[in-house]
Amino acid sequence: MTDVLAIILAAGDGTRMRSNTPKVLHEVGGLPIVSHVVRAAAGAGATRLAVVTAPGHDDVRLKVSQVAPQAEFFEQTERKGTGHAASMARAAWEKAEGYVVVVYADHPLLRAENFKGITDRLDAGWDAAILGFEPRDPTGYGRLLTRGEQLLAIREHKDASEEERKIVLSNACILGFRAEVFRELIDKLKTNNAQGEYYLTDLVELANQSGRRVTYHVAPEHDVMGVNDRKQLARAEMQFQELRRDDFMAAGVTMKDPSSVYVSYDTEIGRDVVLEPNVFFGPGVKVGNGVTIHAFSHIEGATIGDNAEIGPFARLRPDAVLGEAVKVGNFVEVKKATIGTGSKINHLSYVGDTQMGAKVNVGAGAITCNYDGLNKSVTNIGDNVFVGSNSSLVAPVSIGDGAYIASGSVITRDVEADALALGRARQENKPGYAPKLRARAEAIKAARKKG
Amino acid sequence: MTDVLAIILAAGDGTRMRSNTPKVLHEVGGLPIVSHVVRAAAGAGATRLAVVTAPGHDDVRLKVSQVAPQAEFFEQTERKGTGHAASMARAAWEKAEGYVVVVYADHPLLRAENFKGITDRLDAGWDAAILGFEPRDPTGYGRLLTRGEQLLAIREHKDASEEERKIVLSNACILGFRAEVFRELIDKLKTNNAQGEYYLTDLVELANQSGRRVTYHVAPEHDVMGVNDRKQLARAEMQFQELRRDDFMAAGVTMKDPSSVYVSYDTEIGRDVVLEPNVFFGPGVKVGNGVTIHAFSHIEGATIGDNAEIGPFARLRPDAVLGEAVKVGNFVEVKKATIGTGSKINHLSYVGDTQMGAKVNVGAGAITCNYDGLNKSVTNIGDNVFVGSNSSLVAPVSIGDGAYIASGSVITRDVEADALALGRARQENKPGYAPKLRARAEAIKAARKKG
Amino acid sequence: MTDVLAIILAAGDGTRMRSNTPKVLHEVGGLPIVSHVVRAAAGAGATRLAVVTAPGHDDVRLKVSQVAPQAEFFEQTERKGTGHAASMARAAWEKAEGYVVVVYADHPLLRAENFKGITDRLDAGWDAAILGFEPRDPTGYGRLLTRGEQLLAIREHKDASEEERKIVLSNACILGFRAEVFRELIDKLKTNNAQGEYYLTDLVELANQSGRRVTYHVAPEHDVMGVNDRKQLARAEMQFQELRRDDFMAAGVTMKDPSSVYVSYDTEIGRDVVLEPNVFFGPGVKVGNGVTIHAFSHIEGATIGDNAEIGPFARLRPDAVLGEAVKVGNFVEVKKATIGTGSKINHLSYVGDTQMGAKVNVGAGAITCNYDGLNKSVTNIGDNVFVGSNSSLVAPVSIGDGAYIASGSVITRDVEADALALGRARQENKPGYAPKLRARAEAIKAARKKG
Repeated sequence: MTDVLAIILAAGDGTRMRSNTPKVLHEVGGLPIVSHVVRAAAGAGATRLAVVTAPGHDDVRLKVSQVAPQAEFFEQTERKGTGHAASMARAAWEKAEGYVVVVYADHPLLRAENFKGITDRLDAGWDAAILGFEPRDPTGYGRLLTRGEQLLAIREHKDASEEERKIVLSNACILGFRAEVFRELIDKLKTNNAQGEYYLTDLVELANQSGRRVTYHVAPEHDVMGVNDRKQLARAEMQFQELRRDDFMAAGVTMKDPSSVYVSYDTEIGRDVVLEPNVFFGPGVKVGNGVTIHAFSHIEGATIGDNAEIGPFARLRPDAVLGEAVKVGNFVEVKKATIGTGSKINHLSYVGDTQMGAKVNVGAGAITCNYDGLNKSVTNIGDNVFVGSNSSLVAPVSIGDGAYIASGSVITRDVEADALALGRARQENKPGYAPKLRARAEAIKAARKKG
Repeated sequence: MTDVLAIILAAGDGTRMRSNTPKVLHEVGGLPIVSHVVRAAAGAGATRLAVVTAPGHDDVRLKVSQVAPQAEFFEQTERKGTGHAASMARAAWEKAEGYVVVVYADHPLLRAENFKGITDRLDAGWDAAILGFEPRDPTGYGRLLTRGEQLLAIREHKDASEEERKIVLSNACILGFRAEVFRELIDKLKTNNAQGEYYLTDLVELANQSGRRVTYHVAPEHDVMGVNDRKQLARAEMQFQELRRDDFMAAGVTMKDPSSVYVSYDTEIGRDVVLEPNVFFGPGVKVGNGVTIHAFSHIEGATIGDNAEIGPFARLRPDAVLGEAVKVGNFVEVKKATIGTGSKINHLSYVGDTQMGAKVNVGAGAITCNYDGLNKSVTNIGDNVFVGSNSSLVAPVSIGDGAYIASGSVITRDVEADALALGRARQENKPGYAPKLRARAEAIKAARKKG
Repeated sequence: MTDVLAIILAAGDGTRMRSNTPKVLHEVGGLPIVSHVVRAAAGAGATRLAVVTAPGHDDVRLKVSQVAPQAEFFEQTERKGTGHAASMARAAWEKAEGYVVVVYADHPLLRAENFKGITDRLDAGWDAAILGFEPRDPTGYGRLLTRGEQLLAIREHKDASEEERKIVLSNACILGFRAEVFRELIDKLKTNNAQGEYYLTDLVELANQSGRRVTYHVAPEHDVMGVNDRKQLARAEMQFQELRRDDFMAAGVTMKDPSSVYVSYDTEIGRDVVLEPNVFFGPGVKVGNGVTIHAFSHIEGATIGDNAEIGPFARLRPDAVLGEAVKVGNFVEVKKATIGTGSKINHLSYVGDTQMGAKVNVGAGAITCNYDGLNKSVTNIGDNVFVGSNSSLVAPVSIGDGAYIASGSVITRDVEADALALGRARQENKPGYAPKLRARAEAIKAARKKG
C-alpha cells in the first residue's frame, strides 16, 4: 500500500463564528469538526496525519489525539494563506513517500469516500488530483479550469475573470499530490494575487507549467459543506442527522418523527428499536434490539440491553449499563451504574455509582446518596431487592439479595440478605391540630399584609 | 342497505421493514396500520370484515379484534399473490350478497371516504370499481388502462410495456365487486405473469372479458400512501400528524409549533386549549376546554378537565382523571388516579392508585407508595388536605378532609379529618461537626489516591 | 420632531380563531399580537398611541398598558368597518398635529421599520402614505391602484373589477396621513360598497379627489402577515422564531437544531452559548456568555450567569437568578431563588424562595418546603453548605456557612455555621423478615384474586 500523508489545515480563525472556541472544535454529531476530517482521512487509509493548528490552540491537539493518537501537530504562527499553512508541516512532507493529500479541516461531513476519490486518481497515475463539487451557488468558491480530464488551474473567486466566474465546478477541500510533485512545487508559490497570500490552489497551475498531469474528482455538494458561521454549523448538523437517521431507519429502527431524534457520530442502535419523538443521543451510546425509548429521553455514554424500556423523561449518563429488559422510567437519572436483567427504576430516582442485581424494584423517589461532598462511594444492591419509595441509600452501603427496604427509610448501614430494613420515625397523629396550623398560617398572612 | 364484505389483505411479510413485528402491526398515530384500514372499512359501512393474515400472526387478530370484535380471520399459508390471498376468505365470500371489497392493509391513511368512493360506484350500477390515484412517480405501481369511464385492465409494472408505463393513473389499494362477479372470477385467476403469482388485479381484465362494466375512482395520493419500510412509515406518521394538527387548529386549539405536537388517532382536544411546543399524546386522551399544556408533556389514556394546567414535564398515564382547574406541574407522574377540582400537584411527585378530593395541595416530592412488590394498593385523600413536601403515603391509607401531613413524614396509618400527622425524626444539630466530616472525607480521598 | 398619533385598530372579533380570547391577545413570541404592533409604533417614534378596542375587552387595555402605559383607549361599540373604527379615536385625532397613522392590530410581525417607512414618506412632503406589499396570492386583499408614485385608490377585493384583481400590489396594514388631511376626510366616508361599511381605505380616493398627494411604501410580505385563524397564528409564530434564531446564531449562539429552540420577544442570549435541541425560553430570560443549556429545558423569567450549565430537564421559573458557573441539572426546578457562584443543584430538587450562597452542593431529591398551605417562606443557605440527598428544608429556616445536612433529614430549625444537622430515624434491620413480607403480599394477592 502506498504511503499517504494527510495534512489537515486546521489553523483558520473562524471570525464569523463569533466564538472563543477555535472553529474546528465546534461540534457536529457530538464530535469536533476537525475530528470528523481526521477520521475521514484515517478511514481512507492515510498512513500519516499532520495537523496544522493556530498558536495556542492546544485543545485542537487534545481533541484530535483522542480520535487519532498518531497525529503530529504543526503550528502556523503567521496567517499567510493555505499554501503557507500546508508548508508548515515541512518535517512531515519533506521526507514523505507516496502521496501528500492536503485537506481543509472545516468540512465536518467529509467522508472517507471523498478522500479515497483523490488517492484513487493518484493510484491511476495522475500527478495530482483535486476534489471538486458543483455548488448551487458558486459565488466565492475557487473555480476549476479544465480541459477534458486535465485540471489546468484553480482560480480564486476574487481573482477570477467575468468569464471564469460563470464556471460552476468549484474547489472543494482536498488537494492530493505525488509526494515528489508536492515537494517540488510547494516552495514555488507566490503571493501575487488579490489577497496577497500563498494560495495552495496555485499548485495546480504550477504543476501544469512543469508538465504534470493534474485531474479532479467530483463530490456531492452535501459531503463538502464548509462551516464558517453558526448557521452553517446548524445546517451541517441537520445534514449529518438526516443522513444518519435514514441509515438507522433502513436498518430497522422506527422513528415516530425522525426530525426530532438526534444521534451522535458513534451511536449504535439495534433492530426493532422504537423511538418516540424527542430522543437525544450524546456520544458513546449502544442500544440493543427490541428496545423502546419513549419521548423526551436524554442518553449519553450508556449501554442499553435488548428489550429494555426507557423513558419518557429518562436520563442515562456515561457508564450506565442496563441489562436485558431493564425499565428506566420517568424523571430517573442513571449514572455509572450496572443494572441487572429485568430490574425496574420507574420514577423520580437517582441511581449513581451503583452495582444492581437482577429483578430489583426501585420505588418512586428512591435515591442513592453517593457523594459526601468530596468522594463518590458505591452502592451494592443484590438480586430481587425491593427498595421502598422515597428511601435514601447512603453509600458506601450493601443491600443483600432479597432484602426489603421500607418506604421513606434512610439506610446508612449494610442490610443482609432477606432482611427488612427500616429507618424512619413512627407516625404520630394529632387530632384536630390541622385547623390550628391553618389559623397560625392565616395570622402570618395577615401580619405580612399589614407589615 | 347493501351487504358489504370487506376482505382485508394483511398477510404481507414486509421484509423491507426489517422487523420481527408483522408490517401491518407497526403503528401510525398510535394505532396499528391494519386497524386504520379496518376502521376505514367499518366506518364506510362494511357489514362484514374478513381479515387475511399470515400464519402465526396471532397479534394481528388480537389487535384487529380490539377495534372490530366482529372481524373474521383467515390464514394464507402459502405466498401466491394477492388473488390467492383474497381467495383464502372463501368461507366469507362464497355466501356473500351485495359487494365484496378487497383492501390492502398496508395503507394507514386510508379513510372511510375512499372505501365509500368504491361502494358508491357499485351502487351506481357498475359491476366492479377500483381505487386509483395519480402518484408523482408511478414507477412500480400497477397502471390503470382505461377507455372513458371503463377500466379495461390493471397492468403490473413488471408486466407493463414501455407505452403502458407512461400512464400515471395507478392502482391504489381497494378493489370492489358485486359479490356474484367476484365469485364468478376469483377462481379463474392464472399465474402466467412476471412474478408467477395470482394477481388480484387480473380480475379487472377477466371482468372485461366476460362483458362486465368496470370503472375506477381516484383518491388523493396522500390518502393511499403505502408503507413498505420504516422511512415510509415515518412519512405516513408525519402525514397523519399534519392532517390532525390542522383539524385541531381549525377547531380552536393553539399550537405554538404544530410540528412538535403529536396526537393519536383518538385524541380529543377542546376549544381554547393552548399547547406549548413538544407535547405528546398517546392513545386515549381527552382534553377539556381552556386547558394549557406546557412544553415537554407526555400524556396517555388521561382525561383532563376544563381549565386545567399541565406541565411542563408532566407525565399523565392511563386512567389519570383530572377535574376542573387541576394543576399538574413539573416532574410529576399521575397514574390511575382521580384528582378533584382545583387540586394541585406541582412538583416532583408520583401519584398512583389514588382517589384525591378537591383543593388538595400536594407538596414537592410527595409520593404515594402504592406497591409492595406484588400488589398495588389505594391511597384515599379527602378534600382540602395539605400533603407536606417529601412525604410518603404508604398505601393502603386514607387521609381525611382537611388533614395536614407534615413535610418529610412517612404515613403508614390512616389520618382522620383535620388531624396533623407527623412521621419524622427530631432534628439534632451537632455544632462544629461539619469540619470533622470534611476532614474525614479528605482523608478518604487521600487514601483513595494512594491506594 | 413631528407629532405622530398612532391609532391602533384592535376591535376585530376574530371569529375564525374560535376563541373566547380576543384575537389580538393571542400571543406570538410570548407577547400579545396587539403589543407587538404597539411596540412597533412606539419604536418608530409615535408620540401618542390611541387603541380602539371592542366593548368588554378590558384585557386588551391591560396588556397594552403593560408595554405602553401612555396608551389611550377608545371603544368601538358598533361594527361598521375600519373607517368607523378609526373615527372612534376622535378625542385623539381631532386635536392632533403632525401625522395620524392608522395601524391594523392583527399583524404581529410588524416592525418599527415598516411604520417608519410611512412617516418617512410624510416627512418627504406627501399628504398620505399607505403601506403596501406584494402577496404571493393577493386574493382577498385590497388592491393598490397607482400611477407612478401616486396612489389613486385602494379597491377592496369584493368591490374590485376583474381587471383590478390582476393587480398584485395590495394594502398591508398601515395608513398614514397629515393630521389635517385625516381630519378633513374621515367624516366624508360613505358605506356605498359591497359590505356596506365605512372603509378606511376609501380615504385614499377621497384624498385624490381633493387634490392631495398620496403615495405608498412596500414592505416584505413576512413583515405584514395578518392573523385570522390559529393556523396563521402558528405560521406567524414560526416566522417570528426563524428570524430571531437567525439573529442569535449570527451573534454567536450555537443551536444544534434551531427549529427546536423557542425564544420570546425579549429573550437575551450571550456569546458562545450552546443550546442543545428542545430548549424553551418564555418571556423575561437573560442568558450570560459561555452558558450551555442541555436539551429539554424550560426557562422563564430567569437570569443565568456566565458559564452556567443548565439541564437537561431543567425548569427555571421567574426570579431564578443563577450566578456564575452555577449548575442546575436534571429534574430540578428553581423559582424565586438566588444561587451563588459555583453552586450545584444537580438532580430532582425543588428550590424556591431561597437565598443560596456560593459553592453549595444540593444533593439529589433535596427540597425546600416553602409553603405552608397559605404562605411562602424563605430558606437561607450560606456558602459551602452541603445539603444531603432527599433532605427537606422547612422554611423559614437558615443554614449557616459550611454546615452539613445529613441525607434524608427534615430540617425545621436553623443550623449554625459548620454544624452537622441530622433529622432522621435510626436504621433498624430485621433479619429474615423480608420473606415474611413477601408471603403476606402473596396472601393479599391470592385473596384479591378470589375476592
